[in-house]
Amino acid sequence: MDDDSRAVRWEQRTEFPLFLAALIYLAAYATRVLDTDLPPFWQHVCLSVMIGLWLVFAADYAVRWRLSGQGLRFVPTHVLHTVVVLLPLLRPLRIVPLYEAVQRRSGQPRLSLYARVISYAGLSTLLLGFTGALAVYEQERGAPGATMRTFGDAVWWAASTLTTVGYGDITPVTAAGRVIATGMMAGGLALLGAVTGSFSSWLMQTFTREGDERPPGR
Amino acid sequence: MDDDSRAVRWEQRTEFPLFLAALIYLAAYATRVLDTDLPPFWQHVCLSVMIGLWLVFAADYAVRWRLSGQGLRFVPTHVLHTVVVLLPLLRPLRIVPLYEAVQRRSGQPRLSLYARVISYAGLSTLLLGFTGALAVYEQERGAPGATMRTFGDAVWWAASTLTTVGYGDITPVTAAGRVIATGMMAGGLALLGAVTGSFSSWLMQTFTREGDERPPGR
Amino acid sequence: MDDDSRAVRWEQRTEFPLFLAALIYLAAYATRVLDTDLPPFWQHVCLSVMIGLWLVFAADYAVRWRLSGQGLRFVPTHVLHTVVVLLPLLRPLRIVPLYEAVQRRSGQPRLSLYARVISYAGLSTLLLGFTGALAVYEQERGAPGATMRTFGDAVWWAASTLTTVGYGDITPVTAAGRVIATGMMAGGLALLGAVTGSFSSWLMQTFTREGDERPPGR
Amino acid sequence: MDDDSRAVRWEQRTEFPLFLAALIYLAAYATRVLDTDLPPFWQHVCLSVMIGLWLVFAADYAVRWRLSGQGLRFVPTHVLHTVVVLLPLLRPLRIVPLYEAVQRRSGQPRLSLYARVISYAGLSTLLLGFTGALAVYEQERGAPGATMRTFGDAVWWAASTLTTVGYGDITPVTAAGRVIATGMMAGGLALLGAVTGSFSSWLMQTFTREGDERPPGR
Repeated sequence: MDDDSRAVRWEQRTEFPLFLAALIYLAAYATRVLDTDLPPFWQHVCLSVMIGLWLVFAADYAVRWRLSGQGLRFVPTHVLHTVVVLLPLLRPLRIVPLYEAVQRRSGQPRLSLYARVISYAGLSTLLLGFTGALAVYEQERGAPGATMRTFGDAVWWAASTLTTVGYGDITPVTAAGRVIATGMMAGGLALLGAVTGSFSSWLMQTFTREGDERPPGR
Repeated sequence: MDDDSRAVRWEQRTEFPLFLAALIYLAAYATRVLDTDLPPFWQHVCLSVMIGLWLVFAADYAVRWRLSGQGLRFVPTHVLHTVVVLLPLLRPLRIVPLYEAVQRRSGQPRLSLYARVISYAGLSTLLLGFTGALAVYEQERGAPGATMRTFGDAVWWAASTLTTVGYGDITPVTAAGRVIATGMMAGGLALLGAVTGSFSSWLMQTFTREGDERPPGR
Repeated sequence: MDDDSRAVRWEQRTEFPLFLAALIYLAAYATRVLDTDLPPFWQHVCLSVMIGLWLVFAADYAVRWRLSGQGLRFVPTHVLHTVVVLLPLLRPLRIVPLYEAVQRRSGQPRLSLYARVISYAGLSTLLLGFTGALAVYEQERGAPGATMRTFGDAVWWAASTLTTVGYGDITPVTAAGRVIATGMMAGGLALLGAVTGSFSSWLMQTFTREGDERPPGR
Repeated sequence: MDDDSRAVRWEQRTEFPLFLAALIYLAAYATRVLDTDLPPFWQHVCLSVMIGLWLVFAADYAVRWRLSGQGLRFVPTHVLHTVVVLLPLLRPLRIVPLYEAVQRRSGQPRLSLYARVISYAGLSTLLLGFTGALAVYEQERGAPGATMRTFGDAVWWAASTLTTVGYGDITPVTAAGRVIATGMMAGGLALLGAVTGSFSSWLMQTFTREGDERPPGR
């Protein structure tokens, strides 16, 4: 059996369990941040689960790298894999390729380009908003002079940031919170680009199709 | 008579009365929210009108679903119908297909793609701004610490939100107001996408047409 | 001599004097708003100049309408003319068609589509920012609770509004100021659409041209 | 040897040393602004280095102008050169053409259009953010009523400005700071246009390619 088919088999077997692991990781992180009355024992459990799962993610990444036989070229050609190893909170984004793989195996046609862009943009926004609100809230909670007092405040702040509205009634004041927030602003910009770009392309395509269907004399 | 023609006949007969009903629904809601001195009797009248009209809208949706004979596939293929049943305040948006239907019957050509996108985007913005300002104002009015004190404040806030300017001098502070506001931000983003996308496509189209008209030697 | 050539002759003879009149109108308005120590006599002079020039603009519009022989169809086909009669402060925008007319007469080629879009977008932004700052400053100056105290504040507010940044450190508080501001926000959105749309189209065009120059085997 | 080849030789020999000089210029400026405990002697050294390097940049610009033999047409055809002479802090942007020149000489293919747009947009954002934060911080530091107290505040403000989020928790209050900030807002708008425009074009291109690969019957 050659390397290529082993890489494919690895992917097929691990994709689904890893996706479940990503959801568990997110749940453990959310529990640690949001449940302030959590007994120390369960706090340690959550932390251990997170560290253990991250080791699993890292091992999977190493195996894929090895099986790909690509050397250093693996990193630029597997951007999404690299991002979700460094930021495991974003790992549930892998649901889009997972869904596509399931469809391909069952012989159904691939999602259209727009459906993929919209599902990625929508899921990224929800995940970026939720995990960003969690991460910033963890930094801001209890900081002196913080305007973000509840998790609801954090979600409201995340919504106004990702849409680039930016009311400024609630803003992070800690250095760590602001670094995460800057990443979210860049994400909001990319999201805006995805939404406007998809819409523009869809319009162009619709127009071109309608143009083709018209009689030439018009 | 087959199902298809019955569905078309139903649509032709109900489209105009339902549009009038949508305007009455919006007026009843606006009266309830804005007229603070309304006697209890008229408040009950407004509420009864709203509930009655919503039942009419729901019945119309059910009849269309039945006549379409599509089963569960009806929902994804009739997005606008589904949205305006769940959020009847947005129902006046149906004026665009209504206008198109009237034009089609009188033998006039269909609106161009850009005219349709611009009329949808413009009407959506006005309606989203007006109904969103009403709905958020209803939640914020009288809330402790609210910065939104008059309906004028609410309209000003809605304008700065839908254009993604987001001054933040007036912001909702209640949970319900913030949920509605998040929906409006997403709407503002989509509007931005529609405006920039239409403009971009129009430019491309103009360029392509001008390119075709030039002599080939140039 | 037929109507068409008379309309063209009218346009050729009046275009340049009307443009000068538009600059004088703008200067008179700015003087009235900014020079707070202006003696009453000169204030009356400025106001008289503005009223007189507006009558000239209205007369020019009426003559063009008459000469066009189009009846009510004149308004939708001459959007820019109609806008600059209703809002004479925006009249200097007519410099773009004026410049094009001068170039056409001297036999030089027309500006490219991108050059026209960029010159319109850039000039509109500067004019909208300057006249909007003037108009909002006139309303806000002296209003109780106003955060906009100097004309510099008004310009800073206009810049943050037209780019949709919207800091909110300075915002209009009067009803009239907010109505003008809402118009400026819509202008900022259209500007954003023009900038992103032009850029996107330019990229597409560049790509298409590069694609054509490649050998077919690639 | 004709003018053209002398211009090319000049460019090849000076491009790399000038890029190093630009980095030294940026470092000297940052040292002057950020190191508040710098002894007067070193402050003078930094200033002298900056003036000396700027003279070098101006001399290089003059030589290129002379060698080009283009007269006044040099300025509009060398926009990037002109901008980086007037604003030497933005000079490190020249790394993109430098990198392209190195690649061309070693026979490697040119960067694709998207790679160039993305590298320009990304580098411009980082440089504009860093130098803008430095320049605004220099103006605001110590101004009465300033909300921007540390360089971290300045960077946070720059991030929220360039993404057009615009929280407004920290804003410049001095006239000089606001002029620089207005330039950064325009830069943020252009960046937004570049990001959304590239994304839109890339989508269109991907769609067109996929459309070509489909069998015609579909």
